[in-house]
Amino acid sequence: MNTLEELTQSFARLPGIGKKSASRIAHYLLRADKDFILRFSQQIAVLQDKVHPCPECGVYTESALCDICLDPLRDRSVLCVVEQPQDADTIEASHEFKGLFHVLGGVIAPLEGIGPSQLSFDKLLERIKNSRIQEVIIATNPTVEGDTTALYLQKLLSPVEVKVTRLASGLPVGGDLEYADRLTLARSFRGRTEF
Amino acid sequence: MNTLEELTQSFARLPGIGKKSASRIAHYLLRADKDFILRFSQQIAVLQDKVHPCPECGVYTESALCDICLDPLRDRSVLCVVEQPQDADTIEASHEFKGLFHVLGGVIAPLEGIGPSQLSFDKLLERIKNSRIQEVIIATNPTVEGDTTALYLQKLLSPVEVKVTRLASGLPVGGDLEYADRLTLARSFRGRTEF
Repeated sequence: MNTLEELTQSFARLPGIGKKSASRIAHYLLRADKDFILRFSQQIAVLQDKVHPCPECGVYTESALCDICLDPLRDRSVLCVVEQPQDADTIEASHEFKGLFHVLGGVIAPLEGIGPSQLSFDKLLERIKNSRIQEVIIATNPTVEGDTTALYLQKLLSPVEVKVTRLASGLPVGGDLEYADRLTLARSFRGRTEF
Repeated sequence: MNTLEELTQSFARLPGIGKKSASRIAHYLLRADKDFILRFSQQIAVLQDKVHPCPECGVYTESALCDICLDPLRDRSVLCVVEQPQDADTIEASHEFKGLFHVLGGVIAPLEGIGPSQLSFDKLLERIKNSRIQEVIIATNPTVEGDTTALYLQKLLSPVEVKVTRLASGLPVGGDLEYADRLTLARSFRGRTEF
């Protein structure tokens, strides 16, 4: 196998990139400017050495603690529990939340052999115990696994003196009733709010 | 900007990768195994040093001449003219063509400032003159630019004693008349063949 094919195979291993896209990208790189090529390959090479999860909340950082944990202006009484570090990025981009994060590192998925012990629940309990957290917002995905994990978390936190909430689930803004699936519609009924 | 954002930006520069996909890939690489990361970054770094266009036909190769030009079993009387090197790969994958290739390096596109002088027409004429090529198959894309280039090439080759053909254009196999666009349908009528 030649260099071009090898690189194409590597790109095809990445999420969301098929064989055709991989080949297109490899050919693009053949004509890309040398500076970009060197910077790009270097960025990939050093990524894992530079970036690591924040030991406090699990969000990716290049420092001892992440920017969010270090920010004195964040509200330290609210904790948003997410599945993955990138979920925190998505929430940050919405500018809707000013508290701290806690990354579980996944969801409870018995079929894939992922139980509560593999997720950072112990660390979460410890954080709640050692700080003045008053509300835990569960922001796992509105999927079967995400809901299961949210339920587990709710039970786990019931003896703890903290308010536990879950992100609202229902019709997406700008969406159309006609195209809403049955489950989303059912949930938007159950979660209806008063005018 | 941090390492993760920089890498995400680099990925977003690649064709067919948006900002969201780029971020997803960067996060995937954060968890990918170290061996893959090193091999991948190395492949990108050395790509342009190892791979170059064949000086004879323009197809990408790592040797002095490409495998196709060197293959004694290829039919040296037929030349297939393509826009880009990757078009030759696509045709090779179909196992339908056993002749040689000629890469133009693009198409005539006046709006983008690409005229015939920037494409390898001179080299093509030279190759035809110095060899026993009997047929030139024009395999430019069935687009406005590809058709324009094919027409130019046909005129350019009219004084030369060589048969000039163009790949058939019409309904794709497995396609549905109902979903065929007007231009494709029109072309499939004009190019109809006798039973």
